[in-house]
Amino acid sequence: MTSLSVFRDVPIAQKLEGSLLKIYRQDDSSVKMFLAYKVCMTEGGHPWVSLVVRKTRLQIAEDPSLNYEYLPLAGLKSFIQASLELLFGKHSQAIVEKRVGGVHIVGESGAFQLGAQFLKIWRKNLKTVCIISCQNEQCGLIFRDMGFTVYEYSVWNSTDLCSDPSIFVEVLQHIPAGSILVIGNISDCRFTQNQWTKLMSIIKSKQIFPFFDIPCQGLSTGDLEEDSKFLQHFVSLGFEFFCSQSLSKNFGIYALSFLHTLAYGYSFYKRSLGQLRGPNTTLSGLSWRLHILTLSPARLEGSAKQSLKGVVENIMLIKEKVKEKLRLLGTPGSWNHITRQSGTHGYLGLNYQQVEFLVKKKHIYLPKTSRINFTCINSSNIDYITQSIHEAVMLTEG
Amino acid sequence: MTSLSVFRDVPIAQKLEGSLLKIYRQDDSSVKMFLAYKVCMTEGGHPWVSLVVRKTRLQIAEDPSLNYEYLPLAGLKSFIQASLELLFGKHSQAIVEKRVGGVHIVGESGAFQLGAQFLKIWRKNLKTVCIISCQNEQCGLIFRDMGFTVYEYSVWNSTDLCSDPSIFVEVLQHIPAGSILVIGNISDCRFTQNQWTKLMSIIKSKQIFPFFDIPCQGLSTGDLEEDSKFLQHFVSLGFEFFCSQSLSKNFGIYALSFLHTLAYGYSFYKRSLGQLRGPNTTLSGLSWRLHILTLSPARLEGSAKQSLKGVVENIMLIKEKVKEKLRLLGTPGSWNHITRQSGTHGYLGLNYQQVEFLVKKKHIYLPKTSRINFTCINSSNIDYITQSIHEAVMLTEG
Repeated sequence: MTSLSVFRDVPIAQKLEGSLLKIYRQDDSSVKMFLAYKVCMTEGGHPWVSLVVRKTRLQIAEDPSLNYEYLPLAGLKSFIQASLELLFGKHSQAIVEKRVGGVHIVGESGAFQLGAQFLKIWRKNLKTVCIISCQNEQCGLIFRDMGFTVYEYSVWNSTDLCSDPSIFVEVLQHIPAGSILVIGNISDCRFTQNQWTKLMSIIKSKQIFPFFDIPCQGLSTGDLEEDSKFLQHFVSLGFEFFCSQSLSKNFGIYALSFLHTLAYGYSFYKRSLGQLRGPNTTLSGLSWRLHILTLSPARLEGSAKQSLKGVVENIMLIKEKVKEKLRLLGTPGSWNHITRQSGTHGYLGLNYQQVEFLVKKKHIYLPKTSRINFTCINSSNIDYITQSIHEAVMLTEG
Repeated sequence: MTSLSVFRDVPIAQKLEGSLLKIYRQDDSSVKMFLAYKVCMTEGGHPWVSLVVRKTRLQIAEDPSLNYEYLPLAGLKSFIQASLELLFGKHSQAIVEKRVGGVHIVGESGAFQLGAQFLKIWRKNLKTVCIISCQNEQCGLIFRDMGFTVYEYSVWNSTDLCSDPSIFVEVLQHIPAGSILVIGNISDCRFTQNQWTKLMSIIKSKQIFPFFDIPCQGLSTGDLEEDSKFLQHFVSLGFEFFCSQSLSKNFGIYALSFLHTLAYGYSFYKRSLGQLRGPNTTLSGLSWRLHILTLSPARLEGSAKQSLKGVVENIMLIKEKVKEKLRLLGTPGSWNHITRQSGTHGYLGLNYQQVEFLVKKKHIYLPKTSRINFTCINSSNIDYITQSIHEAVMLTEG
C-alpha cells in the first residue's frame, strides 16, 4: 500500500543554508559568537528595536477597545501611502501621476512570494531570474520553488575588496533576454556615468524586468532619501518594475513587507495592482495597528528618523574600531574596505581558509563569504574578534 | 510607449465578494448592522478575544528582554506538536507512527496558499479542486489564482433547511477523478453509516485528495475532541491528506495557520513535509511567542477550554432566543433549523427576496445565502432583527 503514496515522487528537500546558526547553537564553547544575525544588534548583544515601536506595542496591549476585525482586502490606504512616500519621496512624479502603488503583505519575504506568483501567472514568457547582491537567501528559494531558473550573483570583488559595478554590467550582458532582475542593496556600488548608461541600455534592449529589494532603507547613509536615490533613476528613465520593501531592519517593524508596482500609466498600474492579492485579510486590524501607528508621518519625522541616524553612526564607529584594532595588532593588509562599505553588513575580506580558522578554532561563526553583521561586534567581544582575525591572517599569510 | 507596458495583458481583477461590508460601511443609517463578521463577537458587539491571549499579549509587551531574532525555518516544534495533538488527539496512532506533522505559517489562509502551491508543483496531475461547505471565500481564490479549476458547493439544503449529506455524496459522484477535495466544516452533516461508506469508497476509487479545512475546532460542540472526530475516520481508513488548521475563532489567536500533512509512512511524510516551506523565518520569534505561550498545554487545559465552552453555550442561547422571539411574533414556518445548526455561523433559511428586504429596507446586512454569524446578535439588536425577519417573511409569504 505504501508504494502508492501520493507523495512518492516528491523529492527530498534540499537543506537550506542557515545551517551555520545550527552549528553555532550546538557548539558548547563559552566563547562562541555568531556574527551573521540578520537584524541590528544592540551594544548589549540583543536585537535592536526602535523605541517608538516599543512604546506603541505597550500602548496597544493596554487598550482593550482595539478592534480585531479584518482589514479590507486591498490593505490600509494610509499605511501604503506612507510606505510609498518613504520609498519614492513625497513629491514623486510617479505618485502624482497615479502610476505607482502597492499592497502590504505578511512576512518579510511575502512581497517576493506575491511578486513571483504574479510574474509566473501573468508574464509567462519570463523564465529566468537573476539576483544581484542578494542578502535574502529566501528570495532565490521562492523563485526556484515556483519553477524559475535562478542565478545569484554578488557584486563583491574579492581581489580589489570592493563592490564592483563592472561585475554587475558583465552579469547583465550574459543573462538571457527577458529575465527578471532582482536588484538588492547596491548602494556601495559606485557606478560611473558611463557604466550607468550601459546598464540602463542593456536592461532596455534585453527587456529585463527589474524587481527591487529594499530591505533596509536608511541604514547605508543614515538618510532615508539618499538611500533610495537609485530607484529615482529607474523611475525617471521610464522603466516599469516591482519593488519589495521591508521595514524590519530600519524601523524594527517585523513580519510584513510591501510590494509596489510601477507602470507607464494609470490603467496599466491598475491592472497589475488588481492581481496582486495577498493574504491581507488574514491579519487582524490589531496586528497591523502597531505598524501603522509607527509609520505615521509625525512619528517618522521625529524619533524614528533620529534613532535611525544613531544606529548608522554606531555601525560606522564599530567599523572604525575594528580597523584601528587590526592596525594596532599589525595585521597584514589594508583594512580600509571595512569602512568603505555602508550598512549593517559588510565583507571582512577574508578567504575561505581564514574563515574556517575563525569558525573551527575560534568559535566565531561567520559565512564563507566573510560577510558579517557589524552590529554583532560590541565592546565585550571586539578584542577577541580582532585578535582572532589577526591570528587567522598571520597563519595563512605565512 | 504605453502600449508596450509589460502589464498590458494582465486582466482587470474580478471584484471579490466581501463588498457587502463595503456597502454596509457606506450606509449612513443609524440602525444599520452587519451580521456577517467572520470572528466571534461579544455581547457588547466587539470581536471576542480569549482572556488568556489578552494576558499573554500584555506580558510580552512589558518584557524588554524578549528576543526578536528569527525562528528556525521549520518552525517551532513544541508549537506544532501542540497543534497536532489538538487536531488528532494526544494518543493518535498517526502521531506515534511519525507519519503526520506540519508547519505553521503566517496568515489564516497561509496554509491553503502553501498547500495549493505544493500540489501545483508536486502533483501536476491534479487540476481540479472541489470545495465543499466552504466558509473561506479566499480558499477558492487561492486555488483559482494558481490555475486550478475550482468548483464550490454548499451542503445546505434550502428546501429541507438542513446540512444534507446526500448533496455531498452526489457532488463527489460528479467531479472528475483525481480532484482535490477541500472539506470545510461539515459537522452538521449527519451521515448514515451507508452514506459514509459510499463517500469513502468514491474518494478512494476516484483517487481524490482530501484537503481539510478546520477553522474553528470546538465551536460546534464546545468539545475540542468531538469536533475533530470525522478526521479520525479518514486517519483510520488509511487516507493521505492535507489539513489546514486555524485557531483564530476558537482561541483568538489571529494571523497564523498550520498546514499538516499525513502520509502512509514516515518516509513519505518526510518527503511532503520537506517541500512545505513557508515564510516562517520572516516572522520574528517575538511575534510567534504570543501564540506559543497561549497554546501551551497547561493553559489549554485550563482557562482556554473553559472560555471555549462558554462561547458555545452563549451561541446556543442566542439561537434559542431568536427562535423564541420568532415564535412569539407568530412568524410563519418552523425555525428549528436555527438551533439544529452548530457553531457561530448558520443559515437563517431565508430566500433571496427576504434577504434583499432585510438589507435594503432594514439596513441589516447579511449574505444572499442568509448564513449569518449568530454572535453578531445581542440583547440590544435582537428585537429589531427578529421583528425585521418577521416582516420579511410576512411580506413575501403573502
